[in-house]
Amino acid sequence: MTTIRLDELTSTEFGKLVKKNPLVIIPLGAVEEHGSHLPLCTDSVQPEYIAEKVADKIKGPVLIAPSIRYGNCVSTRNFPGTLSISSKTLRLLMKDIISELARNGIRKVMVLSGHAGGAHMVTLREAGEAVVDSCPDMKLMILSDYDIAYELRGKEFDDKDGHAGTIESSRVMAIKPKLVKGTRRNRASFTRPPKFMTVAHPEEFFPGGYMGDPSKASPAQGRRINAYIVQGLLEHISKNFG
Amino acid sequence: MTTIRLDELTSTEFGKLVKKNPLVIIPLGAVEEHGSHLPLCTDSVQPEYIAEKVADKIKGPVLIAPSIRYGNCVSTRNFPGTLSISSKTLRLLMKDIISELARNGIRKVMVLSGHAGGAHMVTLREAGEAVVDSCPDMKLMILSDYDIAYELRGKEFDDKDGHAGTIESSRVMAIKPKLVKGTRRNRASFTRPPKFMTVAHPEEFFPGGYMGDPSKASPAQGRRINAYIVQGLLEHISKNFG
Amino acid sequence: MTTIRLDELTSTEFGKLVKKNPLVIIPLGAVEEHGSHLPLCTDSVQPEYIAEKVADKIKGPVLIAPSIRYGNCVSTRNFPGTLSISSKTLRLLMKDIISELARNGIRKVMVLSGHAGGAHMVTLREAGEAVVDSCPDMKLMILSDYDIAYELRGKEFDDKDGHAGTIESSRVMAIKPKLVKGTRRNRASFTRPPKFMTVAHPEEFFPGGYMGDPSKASPAQGRRINAYIVQGLLEHISKNFG
Amino acid sequence: MTTIRLDELTSTEFGKLVKKNPLVIIPLGAVEEHGSHLPLCTDSVQPEYIAEKVADKIKGPVLIAPSIRYGNCVSTRNFPGTLSISSKTLRLLMKDIISELARNGIRKVMVLSGHAGGAHMVTLREAGEAVVDSCPDMKLMILSDYDIAYELRGKEFDDKDGHAGTIESSRVMAIKPKLVKGTRRNRASFTRPPKFMTVAHPEEFFPGGYMGDPSKASPAQGRRINAYIVQGLLEHISKNFG
Amino acid sequence: MTTIRLDELTSTEFGKLVKKNPLVIIPLGAVEEHGSHLPLCTDSVQPEYIAEKVADKIKGPVLIAPSIRYGNCVSTRNFPGTLSISSKTLRLLMKDIISELARNGIRKVMVLSGHAGGAHMVTLREAGEAVVDSCPDMKLMILSDYDIAYELRGKEFDDKDGHAGTIESSRVMAIKPKLVKGTRRNRASFTRPPKFMTVAHPEEFFPGGYMGDPSKASPAQGRRINAYIVQGLLEHISKNFG
Amino acid sequence: MTTIRLDELTSTEFGKLVKKNPLVIIPLGAVEEHGSHLPLCTDSVQPEYIAEKVADKIKGPVLIAPSIRYGNCVSTRNFPGTLSISSKTLRLLMKDIISELARNGIRKVMVLSGHAGGAHMVTLREAGEAVVDSCPDMKLMILSDYDIAYELRGKEFDDKDGHAGTIESSRVMAIKPKLVKGTRRNRASFTRPPKFMTVAHPEEFFPGGYMGDPSKASPAQGRRINAYIVQGLLEHISKNFG
Repeated sequence: MTTIRLDELTSTEFGKLVKKNPLVIIPLGAVEEHGSHLPLCTDSVQPEYIAEKVADKIKGPVLIAPSIRYGNCVSTRNFPGTLSISSKTLRLLMKDIISELARNGIRKVMVLSGHAGGAHMVTLREAGEAVVDSCPDMKLMILSDYDIAYELRGKEFDDKDGHAGTIESSRVMAIKPKLVKGTRRNRASFTRPPKFMTVAHPEEFFPGGYMGDPSKASPAQGRRINAYIVQGLLEHISKNFG
Repeated sequence: MTTIRLDELTSTEFGKLVKKNPLVIIPLGAVEEHGSHLPLCTDSVQPEYIAEKVADKIKGPVLIAPSIRYGNCVSTRNFPGTLSISSKTLRLLMKDIISELARNGIRKVMVLSGHAGGAHMVTLREAGEAVVDSCPDMKLMILSDYDIAYELRGKEFDDKDGHAGTIESSRVMAIKPKLVKGTRRNRASFTRPPKFMTVAHPEEFFPGGYMGDPSKASPAQGRRINAYIVQGLLEHISKNFG
Repeated sequence: MTTIRLDELTSTEFGKLVKKNPLVIIPLGAVEEHGSHLPLCTDSVQPEYIAEKVADKIKGPVLIAPSIRYGNCVSTRNFPGTLSISSKTLRLLMKDIISELARNGIRKVMVLSGHAGGAHMVTLREAGEAVVDSCPDMKLMILSDYDIAYELRGKEFDDKDGHAGTIESSRVMAIKPKLVKGTRRNRASFTRPPKFMTVAHPEEFFPGGYMGDPSKASPAQGRRINAYIVQGLLEHISKNFG
Repeated sequence: MTTIRLDELTSTEFGKLVKKNPLVIIPLGAVEEHGSHLPLCTDSVQPEYIAEKVADKIKGPVLIAPSIRYGNCVSTRNFPGTLSISSKTLRLLMKDIISELARNGIRKVMVLSGHAGGAHMVTLREAGEAVVDSCPDMKLMILSDYDIAYELRGKEFDDKDGHAGTIESSRVMAIKPKLVKGTRRNRASFTRPPKFMTVAHPEEFFPGGYMGDPSKASPAQGRRINAYIVQGLLEHISKNFG
Repeated sequence: MTTIRLDELTSTEFGKLVKKNPLVIIPLGAVEEHGSHLPLCTDSVQPEYIAEKVADKIKGPVLIAPSIRYGNCVSTRNFPGTLSISSKTLRLLMKDIISELARNGIRKVMVLSGHAGGAHMVTLREAGEAVVDSCPDMKLMILSDYDIAYELRGKEFDDKDGHAGTIESSRVMAIKPKLVKGTRRNRASFTRPPKFMTVAHPEEFFPGGYMGDPSKASPAQGRRINAYIVQGLLEHISKNFG
Repeated sequence: MTTIRLDELTSTEFGKLVKKNPLVIIPLGAVEEHGSHLPLCTDSVQPEYIAEKVADKIKGPVLIAPSIRYGNCVSTRNFPGTLSISSKTLRLLMKDIISELARNGIRKVMVLSGHAGGAHMVTLREAGEAVVDSCPDMKLMILSDYDIAYELRGKEFDDKDGHAGTIESSRVMAIKPKLVKGTRRNRASFTRPPKFMTVAHPEEFFPGGYMGDPSKASPAQGRRINAYIVQGLLEHISKNFG
């Protein structure tokens, strides 16, 4: 199918399409520090790209809802350029949007978040549970594309690769090459914040703003990872939405 | 200046640019019914277009923040395709984003909303007041492009022109011609909901989903209105941000 | 009809009267700075007076609910004597009261606010929408007496007349002459705060605490304006409540 | 002193008076069922009357703030005519008002509630604690006139006298005789709801809407009780506000 | 009956027992300063002890829910060792727990609080009202064991005995003798905070952290008081739960 | 050190001990279905046991705060016996308690949760972040004992072992053998709810109420796992609290 942007339809067209029980994909990003080599929109461009690729390969009607390019950031919250919204705000926002889709008769929704922070993802699921509790025939899938991408850690990629590391840098190189700046020069040391500790300044543990080795990234690897994610998503969609 | 997308910068680039005291423009739209002739993204594409044109003509640095394509809709809330977020959600969202800009050192912000509903606009201002109260040197401008466009009502355009009417249809024809469908056929009768009455079904008063006469719209008029808005905004920006 | 104060009835009398489907009027004011010539209760005495006059001229039963003399003030919030309540508080308060009227079987309500601030009025309407959504046969009218009074601007009165200016001073002179002090001496300069700007200190733009020319006010004009408002309200009431 | 209504002052006059450290009294009532013999404003007229009498007898400056005639009602909440506001609403309302008095420089406040429900009174105190915690030199007294009136139970009046009973009926007879209707005919039986039980229909335990014997009420007793309350309040004021 | 701890049952056992319409007792305490002679768990151990004794003497099935050892403390809030939770937190917590019992089919609940603060008790009742309003056949009893214990003031014990005084010290001596330290040495002077005043530092009025005379306490008296409470509770339970 | 129960201290003793900078451990459980073989308190008894063992082996002073035996349950929320509190309630509760510890001067806190649900754990961390942001020298560790226990999955235990499975059953057998009923008979089939799907009835995927094989559990294994957890915790404590 050709990708349809939900909000490029008129009210009348949307009303008609709803009767065909389309899948609605909501891409979710963040304005978040990703080192000095990746743009602040890193978490936004990835799910937006993946959503399009997935929509292209599905037979039934798919609508891509307007992307939300703001998310809840914890460990990067003190870096320049991060614009974090609170988990309360994010929960209300997602609950409102999914509820409104439900009110309009939509029964298949996939929320695809490029940001994969723990609190961020749990917040999305809490918003989802509230809608599903009052609309139990809603089929609702909530995940990050990193839930699939990180299956490759410990296989093709380093076990400790993470935020703005090899995988993420490669993916953005493949999707938005012009926005990537100088990954080769990135060699700052980093550690994960001490396990289980809640700290006021998590950024002190990775002063370069990334975890992993961006210098090993390449567009070719990025294309392969993206294809892997699309494939994985298609399987989950097929299993869950029929 | 070339338009800069705030979130296409890296954290490092953003950190440097903040020191030059840039103006940040936040475009705000809605997913909202606009008759059977205009797309649901009508309120989004207009401020996004205007923001770019304005940014191009300003000398100092301007950053365009990611557009928020969800807003609070009241009178169209029961039409197919409207995805309204509550005023509480909108207030928290805008307060979080402007606060985060303030925390990053940004001191000049313009919120430009394509949706001009009364509750929507008041909510934006309440969010703004909360930030300005705790960051009094923040210069904060909040308006709808319709605050300027509607200066032309009673002059070039009908006094009663409104939602999805001649002005709005012309503007979208100029900005996104492919998304406009069949304005000529629109001739449904409408009235405004009775003045001062709070009603459960405002859509019954304008079953065609628009107020005014879309059939009189034209791309040429749209271009003229858009230029008028850009000019007006530049004057307000020059007066208020120096 | 003789004006009936809702809360001067006993529970038994009220229960009986509800069956006659009375109109309930809720007057709403504020404790708000109005220059050095008008009292802090300026916004309270006006709708209380108008409510009585209107009730006297309506045939069916009318109940005047206890006046609420506290409101949400924005531009005057830093002047001595303003006691502003937050929009959240005001929304909950009005929602509770109108909901309780609905629970009691009341189906015709007019909220008449002497304070006409943008956030204040939107807040009242949001409270009203919440009630009407769950009680759709409630007929609910929400307005400020200034929605009608200001129709006279640009006609009998200066286009820029505003807060504590000629119209408001005249009205209070007609209603509570003893509370008006020295309008002739008021000649402070003022400007409106810059359009669209959200500022921390709006009072700096009108240090005299008024907008317009109080020295042109007179009781005779006040009586005329009040009669004009009563007439306007009666027409709206007749149209909307039958 | 002559009683001064806070909101009959101008902003300028109020600003000057604040410097003399006046006591502000806030009378608080309710719209609440009080049998078929007392008006719904029973809890409002009592503290309003007492506030005036008290203000008359104090030497220093006293300001009476606008009365709030809405309160939180629990046991009468299902009777016709009760218009209860939630404890959350009441808490926000009182916190806003006392905070605004504090912001204006007021440091002596007495909240006098005619309604004496447990949740209502606790809510007032919680609002007060929040203000006092951030403005510790505020002297804040919160009570019901029934905290003093009921000292007479078990002495001059029956131990079980309560809502709309002998004491309250007498007081309203003394204050607003025209609003009292037929106390002699009131002889419905009643019991208190079972101790410690939280019930959905408390009104079933006193179907006449009162507890005690209104038929024993008289204006003379009412005058005596009111004088007793005024005397008691003056002593508390003298002790606490100096 | 043998006491049954609700959460020592399996899901299956609990499901079966619910059908026998058991009484659930929820003991509620606090972590709160009680002088230098009583432990911070003083308000917890008392209702936990009483709940067991009561459960032992009731014929029908009784389940004791897990004790909540955190409560809302006002007058002791600034002493070392007090860990007060806000009334909002307490209200949500109790509402969630009682609602979940209702969802499980439980229809008889007794909340027994060892802490007897005014705001604390009202908060419990507000939580209870919310549940009972949506589940009207729930029989819900909410009280403090001090509602019964203090019936003995003015009889066997001093009229002014209070927090950590003779009665409370005696009770803890009888229940947890090892946790009581040196009551004989306690002779600090104290007064009650001035009646009706809301103060920022209530602890200044009883610097020893108690009201009454702990030096008069004895285990024998404690046993007698505890027996009196158990007897009183059994009567209330018999009357209210049948 | 001998284990000290925080609330068995007097206010005076606690005040003194705070100066020695003790570690405070807060055990956190749930009332939650755990099959027909494990008690509802399964998630409570485990961290309570572990907290004691850990406290015994630490040299510096350790205080164990009162256990909270209520938590937020998602996938088991519809089973009999689960008493879930909302994530909002849990967040407020934990924020209040940790804030109060901070106000008292405590600077080392470990929250040890026996319940390990995703939303539950994220909620604890959000509460923690709020405290740490305003008290940055607070050292705060938040984890579930299952964060350590599940390191043994894929090694000694099945990779898919989970809720009420082999590991959990073994641990409760070791800690509270009398509360375990008939693990051998448990052989119900189960699947995990479909990955990434938010469903209204998660219990349908594991009708037996457990995931894994309880029939393989043994007290000996439980003792070994518990020792492993204690050892792991001691290492984390040593590393993070010095």
